[in-house]
Formats: sequence, C-alpha cells, structure tokens
Amino acid sequence: MVGTGWRNGKGVTLLDSKAPFPRYASVKEMEIALRQIRDETGPDLDIISTDPDDLHAHGYSEWSTVNTDSLPVAVAYPRSTEQVSIIARICHEFHVPIIPYSGGSSLEGNFSAPFGGISVDFAYMDQIIQFNQDDMDVVVQPSIGWQDLNEQLLKNGSGLFFPVDPGPSAKIGGMIGTNCSGTNAVKYGTMKDWVINLTVVLADGTIIKTRRRPRKSSAGYNLNGLFVGSEGTLGLVTEATLKLTVVPEDLSVAVVTFPSIRDAASAAAEVMQTGVPVAAMEIMDEVQMRVVNLGGATAPRVWEEMPTLFFKFAGTKASVRENIGTVQGIARRNGGSNFEFAKDAREQRLLWSARKESLWSMLALRRDGEEVWSTDVAVPFSRLADIIEVSKKEMDDLGLFASILGHIGDGNFHESILYNPVNGEREKVEQCVKKMVRRALDMEGTCTGEHSIGWGKKESLLWEVGPETLAVMRAIKAALDPYWIM
Amino acid sequence: MVGTGWRNGKGVTLLDSKAPFPRYASVKEMEIALRQIRDETGPDLDIISTDPDDLHAHGYSEWSTVNTDSLPVAVAYPRSTEQVSIIARICHEFHVPIIPYSGGSSLEGNFSAPFGGISVDFAYMDQIIQFNQDDMDVVVQPSIGWQDLNEQLLKNGSGLFFPVDPGPSAKIGGMIGTNCSGTNAVKYGTMKDWVINLTVVLADGTIIKTRRRPRKSSAGYNLNGLFVGSEGTLGLVTEATLKLTVVPEDLSVAVVTFPSIRDAASAAAEVMQTGVPVAAMEIMDEVQMRVVNLGGATAPRVWEEMPTLFFKFAGTKASVRENIGTVQGIARRNGGSNFEFAKDAREQRLLWSARKESLWSMLALRRDGEEVWSTDVAVPFSRLADIIEVSKKEMDDLGLFASILGHIGDGNFHESILYNPVNGEREKVEQCVKKMVRRALDMEGTCTGEHSIGWGKKESLLWEVGPETLAVMRAIKAALDPYWIM
Repeated sequence: MVGTGWRNGKGVTLLDSKAPFPRYASVKEMEIALRQIRDETGPDLDIISTDPDDLHAHGYSEWSTVNTDSLPVAVAYPRSTEQVSIIARICHEFHVPIIPYSGGSSLEGNFSAPFGGISVDFAYMDQIIQFNQDDMDVVVQPSIGWQDLNEQLLKNGSGLFFPVDPGPSAKIGGMIGTNCSGTNAVKYGTMKDWVINLTVVLADGTIIKTRRRPRKSSAGYNLNGLFVGSEGTLGLVTEATLKLTVVPEDLSVAVVTFPSIRDAASAAAEVMQTGVPVAAMEIMDEVQMRVVNLGGATAPRVWEEMPTLFFKFAGTKASVRENIGTVQGIARRNGGSNFEFAKDAREQRLLWSARKESLWSMLALRRDGEEVWSTDVAVPFSRLADIIEVSKKEMDDLGLFASILGHIGDGNFHESILYNPVNGEREKVEQCVKKMVRRALDMEGTCTGEHSIGWGKKESLLWEVGPETLAVMRAIKAALDPYWIM
Repeated sequence: MVGTGWRNGKGVTLLDSKAPFPRYASVKEMEIALRQIRDETGPDLDIISTDPDDLHAHGYSEWSTVNTDSLPVAVAYPRSTEQVSIIARICHEFHVPIIPYSGGSSLEGNFSAPFGGISVDFAYMDQIIQFNQDDMDVVVQPSIGWQDLNEQLLKNGSGLFFPVDPGPSAKIGGMIGTNCSGTNAVKYGTMKDWVINLTVVLADGTIIKTRRRPRKSSAGYNLNGLFVGSEGTLGLVTEATLKLTVVPEDLSVAVVTFPSIRDAASAAAEVMQTGVPVAAMEIMDEVQMRVVNLGGATAPRVWEEMPTLFFKFAGTKASVRENIGTVQGIARRNGGSNFEFAKDAREQRLLWSARKESLWSMLALRRDGEEVWSTDVAVPFSRLADIIEVSKKEMDDLGLFASILGHIGDGNFHESILYNPVNGEREKVEQCVKKMVRRALDMEGTCTGEHSIGWGKKESLLWEVGPETLAVMRAIKAALDPYWIM
C-alpha cells in the first residue's frame, strides 16, 4: 500500500516514498487564481484580502509550539458554501494550497501556511442556520464559537446545550478539524460524538453532505468520523449539524488537594475505575494553582498551591449528592484533603473559567521575549501517575516556569513551559517535550489527545502509528485531494 | 471527484460512471490461488474447506432479507493475523474476492458472495488476548461473541463489562463491520464508541494497527471510525482493543403499555428530550408482545398485548429510583398505564431476553415455506411517531403477520414481516419496505440505523447520500482496495 509521497518544509522525507513532491502554483499562477476567484465571487463584494497585517494574523500564532517562516499570499472571507466551492475549484485547477481558519486558538501550528496559498477564514459564516428543538439538534456554520452557540441556546430557553468545551475562543469549524474535546469529555465524549452530518467542500470544489439527520446510522462509510479530526486536509466544512443535550438540573464544582501529583493521578484513575459519572475531572499541579491565584480570577478566594483535582458534578440533585460522597471517599483513600466546594454559581463559574483560561493566564506571566510551549499527550489510565510524575520531574529539571494540567479522566494531560527563545532554551524545551511524547508512546499512548497534529507533531505521528498506517492515511488523502492542496 | 465505477450483479450501473467493471479471477485462477494459500499456510493444517455444506452455510442466510444465487468457492479458517495476511496477499494477486464471516447473524446479506471468492471464517480466532483491568480495556480476536466476552469478564470478577448488545449470536468482528448497536445504545452509544484500536489486514495483505491504546486521541485520521462500519470492504479486522465499563450497582426492568403506538412513540421522544438517563428504551407493538407471550419465554407471566415500552434503568440504587419516578410521570402524561416491573433478577433477564430474541421468536412462528423480512431505519426524534404510525398501517394493510419493534431512544426501529415467497408476497413486502425507507429519508433519516447496507440496501444508500457522497466512499474504497476484492 503506497500513498502519495510528501515532504515537510525542511526537505526531510517523512516516509521513504519515491512519489514526487507536490508541485504548487508559482506566485504568478496564484495571482491568476486570485483574480479568477474575485471575478467569480464578485463584483459586489471583494472577499479576498492581501493586507500584510491580515496575512500575518493568519500565518502566525503567539501560542503555537511552532510557526513556519512563510505566510499565506491571501486571505479569503467566503460568505457561503457556494463561494467556498468556487475557491476550492480554482485552487484545485491552479494547485494553490488552501488552509482553513476559524478560531485561531490551536496550539500545534494547525493553520500554518508552509507553502503560501490561501487562508480561508470563515469569519462571516458564523450563524445558526436551523434549530430543531424536538430533535435536539442544531445546524450551524463553522465560525460560530461554542460559547456563543450556548449563549444563544440559553437565551431561547430550550434547556439544551452543546457540551464540548475546549478553549474559550474555539469555533465549531476548528473543533471539527481537531476532533477537540475539553473538560466535559469525560462525561460527554469528544467532537466526533456530537456531529450528525457535515456539509463539506472537497478539494475540487464538489459539495457533499455526509448524511441526513438521524442520530444513529450504519449506512455507508462513516465520513463524519473521517472528516472530524482531519484538520481540513480532506475538505472544508461549511456547515455542521450537531447533537445537543439537556442542561443538567444541578451542578456542583469542587477541588481537593493532594500531597503529590502521583496521589492526585492515582485518585483520578480510581474514580474512573469505579465508574462514578463525574461531569469533569481536571488535574492541575501546584504551579498551575499558583497561576490561578496570581491571575486573581477567583479573588478574593485564594486556593492552596498544591497538586489539585477539580471536579464538576452534574445531574439531578440526588445523583450529584451521591456522586460527591463517592468521590470524597476515593480522594481520602488516596491522601486527598480539603474537599472544598465553590460556594455559589458565581464562584463555580469563576473557578471553572480559571481552569479554562489557564493558557492565557500563563501567557500573561511571560516576561520580555518569553514564549510558551503548550502541548498534550494521552496514555492508558494505569500509566497516568507514572508518566505525569516522571515528566513533571524532567520539566522541573529544566529550571523554567512550567506546569502540568489536564483532562485526567481521559488519560490526557498538558504541559505548559515558559521559555526564552534567544538563549537556547527552545532546544531544551523541545527535547523535553519529545521525550514526553516518546514516553507516552512507549506506554501505548498517543502523541496528542486533543490538540491534533498540525505542523508541530508530524514526526510524532509517524513514531506513533508507523509507516504502514501512515501510508493508509496518505492513500485516503491522495484519493480525496490528488494535488495535495489542503 | 470520481471514484472507481462499479456495478451490481445484475449489470445495473449504480453510479453513472464509465470506469470499468472489476475483473475477478476465473475459476481456474481461484483454484491456483487456493493451492498457493494451502502451500503457504500448511502443511500441518489445511485451513481451506470446499465442502458443499460449508459453502452453503457461508453464502446463504435464512433470516436475511436478500440472498444471492452464487456461493463462495471456498471457506478459509485462518488461525492468526499472519494467515489472514497470506490469504489477502494471494487473493489480491489473483483478484479473488474476499468475504469476512463471523457470527452470521446479519440481516441484509452482509456476507453474501455475489462473485464467488473466498469466505474468511474467523471461527478459530475467538480468544481474549489481553485483559487490562486497570486501563478498563480488553484485546480480543474477531470471533469472540459479545455474550461470551461478558461471561468471561463476569467470571474473573473484574466488575467490568462490554455494553454493546446486538443479537445474541453476534460476534465482535461482525459488530465492528456493521457499527452495530443494540438496546444499550441509548446509554452507551454504538460500536464505534468502544473501539480503541484495530489490527487490520488490508486488501494487499499489509498488516496495520490503527493506533495504540489511549482512550482518546486526535492524532492523524480516525481510521477506527472508518473501518468500523465498513462491512469488511476496506480490510479484515483480526484483532480489536475494546473499552470496557463498570457494571452498574443496580438494575431495574419495567414495561408500560399505551393505547396506541403513536402514544408510545411520543412518550419515548419525551423521555429523550427530558434527558432522563435510561439504560435502554425499546418499543414493541401489540403483535410483537403476542410473539413474546406465544414464545413463553417469561412463563408463567403473560404480558398485555398492547403497544409497549420496555425500560431498563441502571446506576446506583438512588439514581435508578429517581429515574423510574421521572419516567412514570412522562408515561402517564402520554396515556401510559400499568407500569409493571420485573419482580426479580430472573424475570428481568427473561423479559429482556424475550425482547432480544424477538427475531428468533418470529422465525419460530413461520408456517411451511414462509420467510421473514426484518429491516431497520432511523429518523430524528420529532418524526418517530409519524413514521411508525404510517409504516405500521401500511404493513397491516398487507394482511400479513408483521410487527414493529425497535431502539426507540435512538430514533431507530425495525419491521419484521412473515411472508410466503411462492405467491407473490415477496414483491408486496419489498414495495412496503422500500416505501418505509423512502419515508425515513424524506424525514431526514437513514435507510439503516444499525443493520448496515450489505447486499440488501445498496440502492437505498444511493438514495440516502446521493452520487457525490457515494463517489467519496468509492474513492476511499478504490484507494485501499484497488482491485475491489473485499
């Protein structure tokens, strides 16, 4: 099984394949393509921008682990599926790369433009198209944010919400691209579990819909499952029907501290193995708790700066009470103390948002010239305590400001490290992160639980799945995008 | 986007494509291929059978809606992934079709052999390879039955089980092929939600593993999601790592009767819209309740022969009690009466198995020469009552013994119709079923919620997704199986 060969920007062959490097359009051809897109989508409105600031904003991210030297040559702002189809058809004809862009909050160079090309920004496609209350689903455009969607659902009083909750600024399009999750994943699963159908513009401009609107189907190949998590490399999602679920009657948020990160991880594993239906379970080390206190988000309340588990309980009042009791018992058995509850809805919100904004809190602590490396891995439950303990020790040995936090109920955790790129710190950090990825793979884990591969983890993917499995992915890619433009 | 063209056995072009009909091996070439497989897998053990009874058993099913005239030319009984790889490599070389076989309980001609070829029966690959209690997962071979797996898990006292529960004789391999579900799907989801990784033999014999053992990942394309539900047309699954979950503390089973099937369907939709976490919710019409009584499975208890909802509640004792209260209220508001509980574990088991064995109970009622047509569709919640009411009326107008039952919590239901093929009844039944499928599609549903496409619903799939989306499926198929042998 041989897929189309491909090389990364440095000319290093990722797979030992003799297939040719894809030939992309010259600058001149890109200009012709841009003119043609303008002709076909105009004349009333110019959807193409070549403003330098715009290009920079779409090709560089201050919170990404990697950035490429090149930028897109243009940003397109389509208003409809049909305009996206025109863009793709013309780009296909001229072999112009296409990079989709929605929230811009990804962390692994997921929207980098290593070969120039056109960044397709869905900013103007951010609407709810149809809300089917009785069917408990909603049809949306890719640039609606998950928080905005939930605010609109709250306002209409339907009692429904969309439970996948990544970083606050994430939008549905990018969430589909990365098969993202967030703190609620332990109860509600990841993005792929919430997609009923997708409208996708393929590389050649063909518009398809993956399926109709049943909540369950076994008809044909599961194209939802394939496009979700494909990072825009197989097609551009222009519309999605999403399942919704019922807002729980009761909610409670609590934190419990542990003497060591290993104790916290062991308690978390036991919660999962006991089958307590927690709504979320997050781990934060003492550094990250300090970041929360420094950020002042929950002021005047100040939290103990120790390894901590965050719990969210949701359900009926009685079931929430019952689950809290069980979890308290498990925490105590694993050395936990100070089971503290948020005392009202405001504090619940603040505490949870302190967790959700941890990356931004880290960014706020940067001194002049410092950057942040934030990345994630996931392993089977039984290895969680081991990998977190060792990785934290290695990270601390760097002598940098660094923290661990994560969605421990999924076996998934994150490292965030502040470093100064001018004095060789970047190389040390990169080595440290690569060791963690290798360790996760040795423990039968994955190089990314939810951030996806992007530009930053291409090599890790090869380590993880091996050349044969990567060749299958390439074969699928080549079948749907023969000129490798996406 | 043009996929490789393909025609069905009758020479009818499903897609208007000019690509050539695949050329399969001649009988003589198949014989050479068989000899070579024997040479490479022998000499100690002959894994190939050409016994006529064996061929018939692997090419014909008495409970399938369709059967083809042809049979496989041989049945292979591999003992290992390596032997499956040898079979695939040789079949690839000689263009011999391969049809995987595990439980043989599918309903849509899913293992029919329209072009002869080799049926690969995994009967001897039925073991648990590795059980990871702390990680809550298990590595199995494809021919282990889900019931057998659960019995072994019960015996080892782990407190874990595998929750996907289709027909009693189904095996993991076929369950992966059809992305099957069963009564527990409303709580636990479908097969795709429980697969951590797969070992797959591709069409050319290459062995791949889709991923390692993390419970969550966003690394690379979601090949699990692609192979699950692909009905063996992209590769042969030889090993699977499956998630397990904790056996609930308490279980309760209840039935409630309604004046009409519409009332029952409305109550079911309300249960879902209220978000009550029922473990299962099944609908059976008065005919199907009669079948349960006639079968005598729960004797001496006899159930009212009225439209009925079956509920399973699972969780802690307190949450079960609470959920029962909520559901009783909803049932009463929708005209339900006689909320009856199974009075002990034995009756729970009998009642649920009466539901699970409904197809076999129907088969047992056949008179001389009669056959059964059993099929499924799924629609959005809001259309459930409509489609069930109309479809039941049309079915009753046939004047045949026919029943409706289904996994109503997923919007998924089944029709089972007894008919006599000699007097033209088959055509009437086929028309009736096709009307139901068309109606489900008009309501934005799917032609199959869980039985899959097989040989019986190829045309329905085209109706459902349209030629462009089907072309994407074909392109993927062609990329992974260029000779179209699987």
